Amino acid sequence: MNLDFSSNVFETETIDLAGTRERIVRGGRDLFHKLPEALKDIDQIGVIGWGSQGPAQAQNLRESLEGTGVKVKVGLRPGSYSVEDAEAAGFTEANGTLGEMYQVIAESDLVLLLIADAAQAENHQAIFDRLKPGATLGLSHGFLLGHLKTVGTKFPDDVNVIAVCPKGMGPSVRRLYEQGKEVNGAGINASFAVVQDIDGNATDIALGWSIALGAPFTFQTTLEQEYLSDIYGERGILLGAVHGVAECLYRRYTFQGMSEEDAFNESCESITGPISKIISKQGILAVYEGFDNAGKAEFEKAYCASYHPASEVLLEIYDDVASGDEIRSVIAANKRFERYPMGKIDGTRMWEVGKSVRAQRVEEDIPINPFTAGVYCAVMVAQCDILSEKGHAWSEIANESVIESVDSLNPYMHYRGVAYMIDNCSTTARLGARKWAPRFDYLLTQQAFVAIDTGADLDEKVFEAFLTHPIHPVLQTCAALRPSVDISLGE
Amino acid sequence: MNLDFSSNVFETETIDLAGTRERIVRGGRDLFHKLPEALKDIDQIGVIGWGSQGPAQAQNLRESLEGTGVKVKVGLRPGSYSVEDAEAAGFTEANGTLGEMYQVIAESDLVLLLIADAAQAENHQAIFDRLKPGATLGLSHGFLLGHLKTVGTKFPDDVNVIAVCPKGMGPSVRRLYEQGKEVNGAGINASFAVVQDIDGNATDIALGWSIALGAPFTFQTTLEQEYLSDIYGERGILLGAVHGVAECLYRRYTFQGMSEEDAFNESCESITGPISKIISKQGILAVYEGFDNAGKAEFEKAYCASYHPASEVLLEIYDDVASGDEIRSVIAANKRFERYPMGKIDGTRMWEVGKSVRAQRVEEDIPINPFTAGVYCAVMVAQCDILSEKGHAWSEIANESVIESVDSLNPYMHYRGVAYMIDNCSTTARLGARKWAPRFDYLLTQQAFVAIDTGADLDEKVFEAFLTHPIHPVLQTCAALRPSVDISLGE
Repeated sequence: MNLDFSSNVFETETIDLAGTRERIVRGGRDLFHKLPEALKDIDQIGVIGWGSQGPAQAQNLRESLEGTGVKVKVGLRPGSYSVEDAEAAGFTEANGTLGEMYQVIAESDLVLLLIADAAQAENHQAIFDRLKPGATLGLSHGFLLGHLKTVGTKFPDDVNVIAVCPKGMGPSVRRLYEQGKEVNGAGINASFAVVQDIDGNATDIALGWSIALGAPFTFQTTLEQEYLSDIYGERGILLGAVHGVAECLYRRYTFQGMSEEDAFNESCESITGPISKIISKQGILAVYEGFDNAGKAEFEKAYCASYHPASEVLLEIYDDVASGDEIRSVIAANKRFERYPMGKIDGTRMWEVGKSVRAQRVEEDIPINPFTAGVYCAVMVAQCDILSEKGHAWSEIANESVIESVDSLNPYMHYRGVAYMIDNCSTTARLGARKWAPRFDYLLTQQAFVAIDTGADLDEKVFEAFLTHPIHPVLQTCAALRPSVDISLGE
Repeated sequence: MNLDFSSNVFETETIDLAGTRERIVRGGRDLFHKLPEALKDIDQIGVIGWGSQGPAQAQNLRESLEGTGVKVKVGLRPGSYSVEDAEAAGFTEANGTLGEMYQVIAESDLVLLLIADAAQAENHQAIFDRLKPGATLGLSHGFLLGHLKTVGTKFPDDVNVIAVCPKGMGPSVRRLYEQGKEVNGAGINASFAVVQDIDGNATDIALGWSIALGAPFTFQTTLEQEYLSDIYGERGILLGAVHGVAECLYRRYTFQGMSEEDAFNESCESITGPISKIISKQGILAVYEGFDNAGKAEFEKAYCASYHPASEVLLEIYDDVASGDEIRSVIAANKRFERYPMGKIDGTRMWEVGKSVRAQRVEEDIPINPFTAGVYCAVMVAQCDILSEKGHAWSEIANESVIESVDSLNPYMHYRGVAYMIDNCSTTARLGARKWAPRFDYLLTQQAFVAIDTGADLDEKVFEAFLTHPIHPVLQTCAALRPSVDISLGE
């Protein structure tokens, strides 16, 4: 894919990631004065939906555009349960910033379609019919494109179609933006894509939107690459895999005789706490390098045994997303919700133990378990390798497989538990986590752990590849673009 | 669907199953003298492939047709690993009963296509091109029809297309036939379907084939209903669910403080041993009725909590099979085997414990655990209910959800372990078991067991429905058609 673009408004820069050059735009509050120029024909932005991304984007945009004359108006279905929440955030009918969804779509110049994937799929024609000719349709995810492909239709010809896809869940997009008020440019990275550009403004509208959300850096993708990597990523290390890895490690450690509290500490707490922090600040390799020799050997063993079973599941996920099967399965699952609404996952014994462990947590005492770290890093790197093999750009790989995980999702999981993390993501993501976590669990248990326990020969080559993996310098480059604000949760 | 048909050769009878009348044909060695009439234009039957069904069908047909002049010839790819096995069973090039696959297809009047599903999908055009005009193509599974639908092609017009689908894996089809030599008609029930009948003989060819395999009774289906129920069933209680149920019960019992040996006894052994035996001989309700009051209460609680989570997974499976997604996923998985061949599932701690439990087993001492029984029966009945809701005939429901399980698969699992059971089925079935077992495990653990442990209100209505369920009289009727030979494994 072409990783070059030009902007009439913002300065761009080129970075080198694993030997490929990508053009990006660095964000920051110091650029907010350029937003009116980027959004020059836009009087109203309609933010449609109030799910994971809606509240974050509507509030961030409103604050970033304050005083510019660009109105941010939320559109909801009449009688939506979210009306109250939107009003509590200051979006009200009385002040003209809240309205009926289709009405807001019809009157907005930039329509950010942030309703659930299944609702987008179901109502896309009615939505398309309401768009003003010459307006811009904005998506934060490529699911709709995936769906249009499976049903054989297209976006309307007379609108711009763009995407800005924050690489983190909505609550993180909001939380970091708020914390970033004191520090220039704190936020969540975003990818952008231009699908249709009818007036030559599409790129700048997308970049303006992204900067207004608070993205520290914005990189380019295509909407197809976006939905492939996004749906794949959340089924993998972002949600599905971290859930399955925690489950199978917890079970392994308890069967080895550890107390359940210790097992939770050595598996889930270790991952969402110190391991994520090290990766966020110093990269993946630093996790390994921090161990003594015995720890390094344990990490290596776990890594080598886990890399291939993880790759096997991840390949299957990628195939299912690319074939459209996974998108069809989300649509079908949504239809079954009337009969069986999605249940909770946090009631099992392990997550109950987790609650009490979290309640008594002393952050500094959480162990960095080398076996846990080896399994976790193997899954993370396997995910990167498959994305690379399938032709994704390194910005996307790093953000969808590492940065989103350690800077957005894992901190929430650490703070509130896995169920909170998973259940604050999109329905598509929640379904994916439920579907694939058990597959990672079983395959790691049946293949990786059995290989270790029976002393089978492990593939040492995957570890050599790990030591010199391109993801390490890529993460270093990305880290240099990141403002010095970490997400902070805990009050 | 039409459940009536007529035969020019065999006597038919009508049975009443849950208020619907189905026409069937009872089998038996006493009918073998009619086989030449049923197969009147057939000089050679080509049995293509030597997987799960091939060895059983080739040997049973050869013995049933001995002295009739109908030759049974096995067709394999040159250099196939199976040549040696086929020769050991007496199918040799020297005696003219073994040949190259496409050659055998071209020269046979009835071609039984028993190669792997993925190979059928990949090579169907070459196979169709070799068929003699006027020949009969025989399938033992509707997967190929499912695949032809997803790619938009059809069977050739100038051949009969029929199916005879034994409701058990090949080794059971063979084993019971062998044991049945002393008793008239012992074997595995089969469904039959006529897809294309160009000469008016298709029904009798199918019935003759089924009787020659040793089917005690043969019932009608359509090839589409067959693949839907078959692929769904093996992902459910036949393989996937029994695997997942055993795993989650074993984990539950060990976490409750049971020794691992006891936990294996109270979960897996209980299911594959005494619970299966009771269902086979006396039906599902008898399992419940055999408990004392405390046991009945425990069964009921487990049943009520498990019924809905099981239904949720089963509905998803049915949707995925009906949409073609599951078939596409099997084809895709086969393509990934070059990189990651299917691993074994029997190396984990639980199945290692199972080995030693089996080695010391005293059959009479295996417990009939009421909680285990409640969970297992809930999944089995939920599977029946969804098939019924989707319009399947009761013969098919009973055979695909109960009889195949307790009379064919579970006895093998009891004898040799779950891995043997799963890994002697078709690749499609093995893939399905790996994909869905963990889903049953997680959903039962996260929903059913949590509901029980937190004292949540359970849906008592599903238990009332169980007590008066139509499957009970249906199984009684089916049992009356069954010869008095049980599969016996153990030497």
